[in-house]
Amino acid sequence: MSLRKSKKAFQVIRVTAQGRAPSRRDSIITEEPLEIRLKTSRESKSLAITMRTPGHDFELTAGFLFSEGIVHSRHDFSSLTYCVDKGISKEQRYNIVNVNLNTVELPDFPQLERHFFTTSACGICGKASLDALEQRGLLALASAPEIEPGLLLSLPEKLRTGQTLFEQTGGLHAAALFSNSGELLTIREDVGRHNALDKVIGWALLEERLPLTENILLVSGRASYELVQKALSAGISVFCSVSAPSSLAIDLAKRFNMTLIGFLREDSFNLYNETALRD
Amino acid sequence: MSLRKSKKAFQVIRVTAQGRAPSRRDSIITEEPLEIRLKTSRESKSLAITMRTPGHDFELTAGFLFSEGIVHSRHDFSSLTYCVDKGISKEQRYNIVNVNLNTVELPDFPQLERHFFTTSACGICGKASLDALEQRGLLALASAPEIEPGLLLSLPEKLRTGQTLFEQTGGLHAAALFSNSGELLTIREDVGRHNALDKVIGWALLEERLPLTENILLVSGRASYELVQKALSAGISVFCSVSAPSSLAIDLAKRFNMTLIGFLREDSFNLYNETALRD
Repeated sequence: MSLRKSKKAFQVIRVTAQGRAPSRRDSIITEEPLEIRLKTSRESKSLAITMRTPGHDFELTAGFLFSEGIVHSRHDFSSLTYCVDKGISKEQRYNIVNVNLNTVELPDFPQLERHFFTTSACGICGKASLDALEQRGLLALASAPEIEPGLLLSLPEKLRTGQTLFEQTGGLHAAALFSNSGELLTIREDVGRHNALDKVIGWALLEERLPLTENILLVSGRASYELVQKALSAGISVFCSVSAPSSLAIDLAKRFNMTLIGFLREDSFNLYNETALRD
Repeated sequence: MSLRKSKKAFQVIRVTAQGRAPSRRDSIITEEPLEIRLKTSRESKSLAITMRTPGHDFELTAGFLFSEGIVHSRHDFSSLTYCVDKGISKEQRYNIVNVNLNTVELPDFPQLERHFFTTSACGICGKASLDALEQRGLLALASAPEIEPGLLLSLPEKLRTGQTLFEQTGGLHAAALFSNSGELLTIREDVGRHNALDKVIGWALLEERLPLTENILLVSGRASYELVQKALSAGISVFCSVSAPSSLAIDLAKRFNMTLIGFLREDSFNLYNETALRD
């Protein structure tokens, strides 16, 4: 949907111990700022700027707003549009998304501040972080699909095949959503690992598929606290990573009843927590 | 320095298409919140909470403060201490660092808000992002060491050897600083890629080695805008990554005269921008 390019050509010189190859053009993954603006009939506010790879900007916006608890369904806004205000130069075009809300007032969003400013009334430790999620309304998952191990082992190959930008640039993260029978539903790539997942969740929100209790998520990187938290908020019950999980990601999966799989390869995977995985 | 563990043991089950292995204990990289508090003789404020791997917490704090422009040398604070206030439970201990500033008033730190809230007066595009750095006082690098390609090719092996936590857990990022003769000066690991670099920069700040104009940085992941920006603020003139750079990372290197190297392997690397690399 974006009219900005997801990759750009740069000159690059390959160097070995023997010397330099002639300069050649190479595809480089684009990284550019995206500004998200909230608009009501009365007010307007710049909410966030995030560095992202252009492409699927509306999904990124929707997923970001959902993950941060600012919107809960696509009916919370009338449309997502690129900003075309006068004064927007050519370089900025398609780098600003307006979220046209259905309300008159802008929503409160104190929780956005948690990334930097916080009162930390509840203490600073792993357990307190999980408690805080519960206090914000995150519920333990109540159901999960039964998945055969063989089906999971088939997913990395499907992820790789779908990573078209990675193939061309070697430089970005991917998040892919599968049905419980292993069908690839959507795959999104971005220089930011959180963005890739936000795009997937935003896709589901715009398609009105949330919550994703019957789906499997596979991410190209590690399973960190923040990624698992985003997936939980979207109701994803099976979280797979091709790499390692962190301690807090495992704690989070255990507390909220999510199946957590790491080091998913063609021949094996590690099971860190289990809800309904059939053996 | 931290008394919290950098890794924890969890039970994990390895699964193949043939079935499950018995559950075994495995080392998992720790991810826990760290709160940074600014203190003066009169005031105190919680500045930030970041998810990090415990270990080298004072370096992380110092590097974070430096990268964000809140402190400029170790003489801007009298000490860094773990918070031992009454009411700090055992679980929180060593997760809160006090920055004991030498001033009476807390510093202004509006720029911290850029991650979420912004007025974006200067436009939203890659070029504007670079202009903003210049306006905040970032200067183009004026000198750089001469480095033989063969020396650079020797660094990935040194990085790997130094990644002791990665060896045990398979799950985190590393940033390593080398002298211009290829000697490993310091290596830091963390679940967060920004944290690993902040720890290296914080080490240099506490050792009073800034700016790092004669040094080479190697990171285990991709070269993104934010990492290159942090390195530039520390004066690092040769930035190497074992993976791909983003478009904006290259633009940044060109604008501020940094040598940028990607896909650094044992036998070759890609040169995206060059200041003083000898061929």
